[in-house]
Amino acid sequence: MSANPIPLGINLSFCVKRWVTADLWAPIVRDQLGLELVQFSYDLVDPMWPAALLDRHADAIRSQTDSHGITIHSAFIGLAHYTYSQLLHPDPDVRAYAEDWLGRAYAFAARAGITRVGGPLGAIASRIDGVEPDAIPEADYADLIDRMLRLAEHAKLEGLTELYVEPTPMRREWPWTVKQARRMANDVKGSAVPWSYCVDWGHGTFAPLYGSQAIDMEPWLTGLSDCITAIHIQQTDFQFDRHWDFTEKGKVDATDAAAIQRKAGLRHVPTFLEVFYPFERDDSSILQALRATTALLKRSYA
Amino acid sequence: MSANPIPLGINLSFCVKRWVTADLWAPIVRDQLGLELVQFSYDLVDPMWPAALLDRHADAIRSQTDSHGITIHSAFIGLAHYTYSQLLHPDPDVRAYAEDWLGRAYAFAARAGITRVGGPLGAIASRIDGVEPDAIPEADYADLIDRMLRLAEHAKLEGLTELYVEPTPMRREWPWTVKQARRMANDVKGSAVPWSYCVDWGHGTFAPLYGSQAIDMEPWLTGLSDCITAIHIQQTDFQFDRHWDFTEKGKVDATDAAAIQRKAGLRHVPTFLEVFYPFERDDSSILQALRATTALLKRSYA
Repeated sequence: MSANPIPLGINLSFCVKRWVTADLWAPIVRDQLGLELVQFSYDLVDPMWPAALLDRHADAIRSQTDSHGITIHSAFIGLAHYTYSQLLHPDPDVRAYAEDWLGRAYAFAARAGITRVGGPLGAIASRIDGVEPDAIPEADYADLIDRMLRLAEHAKLEGLTELYVEPTPMRREWPWTVKQARRMANDVKGSAVPWSYCVDWGHGTFAPLYGSQAIDMEPWLTGLSDCITAIHIQQTDFQFDRHWDFTEKGKVDATDAAAIQRKAGLRHVPTFLEVFYPFERDDSSILQALRATTALLKRSYA
Repeated sequence: MSANPIPLGINLSFCVKRWVTADLWAPIVRDQLGLELVQFSYDLVDPMWPAALLDRHADAIRSQTDSHGITIHSAFIGLAHYTYSQLLHPDPDVRAYAEDWLGRAYAFAARAGITRVGGPLGAIASRIDGVEPDAIPEADYADLIDRMLRLAEHAKLEGLTELYVEPTPMRREWPWTVKQARRMANDVKGSAVPWSYCVDWGHGTFAPLYGSQAIDMEPWLTGLSDCITAIHIQQTDFQFDRHWDFTEKGKVDATDAAAIQRKAGLRHVPTFLEVFYPFERDDSSILQALRATTALLKRSYA
């Protein structure tokens, strides 16, 4: 154990459609993986469920995490909500629905004792001819900033302390460059609660977008070190955003990743393993792979 | 063109978070892919959107498909709703919400001029020890059948003509064997509208579940030929349910697949290409791969 361990946790993405309730995932996280820090996923609870149902699940999460000694750092949008283009859907009424969804997500988080919420923001539509502009139109960007400022007000009313943007490697989302991320950070400066970044080791390293010479997490971590307060770690091959665990062969060296994070001055930043498995993969092999992966990460981040 | 072409269409899974509205996907389907038959995906429209918004999208779909000469055969649950364990979630209130979701999906389909709706039914929770029983508990199965009978009543009231179960290769879902599918067909016989099967070339061929000697679509197609009225075709490697297009190297030969379908007496059954792409892949390469894939399938299914 080194003198400067990085706080290590796990996003509950591995639980989706498997260990769906807190009485199932809390003992896996604590007893099988030996972790105490969790990032909750809204793939386990849909904020559009009726209020009484949401309250019951929020209370169960609070109770199970208390009894298992688990801290939930934040709650992140999962694949289900990400699917619907969210705050940048071409239809303004769909954007409004996505904003409402987030408001309900904040209320759920607050009740469950989770003070930070985040995820990707949304995607504009693709063009019929397949041509992808380098960035979303300015009018869409302005609308997005307005919504982010309103959402921060909403989050404050619910008692949350921080919101997250997770940059994704796509021209039709925002931000996909460090420069765009910096512009957005400036444009939401002074929001009712701060908007911070959660960067992901599979996003800044997506070679088909950035070019194989330009893939590198170091510019993200150093360039945004003042506003990154959470990190996703995954194994990936730089060809897609794989979200593999570390039993798969890939190009991320966990010890190097931890070193780059420390060098950027982000030793204190909680780092979450975020892995997705095919729905059809068997449970037993997933638990085994997760145990091996968390053991490896604990050594690398110690 | 042979004398016995199989009706070929496409599931709109390829449009998810890209060509999200009918004015975008209709011209791609008709002009770029040269197809006239579509299976809609609820990853493009969330049935929980407010009624006025749903109506507007339903009307746009009806108008765009009319003007482009496209028929929508059916509407299928996409990845977003599939994520939430649906009708087999351990919490009965989540099951009730999923049943409500389907009721709203039926109403949306009816307004859009779509008369058939379907998809996978749901998943029980996984166990903490990773052990997977061979089948879902009998009490859960009985509850599921009750819900299916109620859903068929609901669908009839909305004016739908047929509902679908899509078997998936998972022990925690139902059915994953031909025998289970036959039992379920018997148990919902006489429902207000018929429950039929939509089988998928990547499901019956998942070697880790069935064993590499037992993977075969022929028993599914012949054993359930009286109740299969739609089929999903995809390229896959039999190691996972890949949902690749046919520019990828895999183990499905499209001409053989068509021959097996014809031999089972299912020449008349509409067959839909169902492919999913990583969100981060570029639009242009996807359109190119889809054009090549539909050209190949048209030859194979002619």
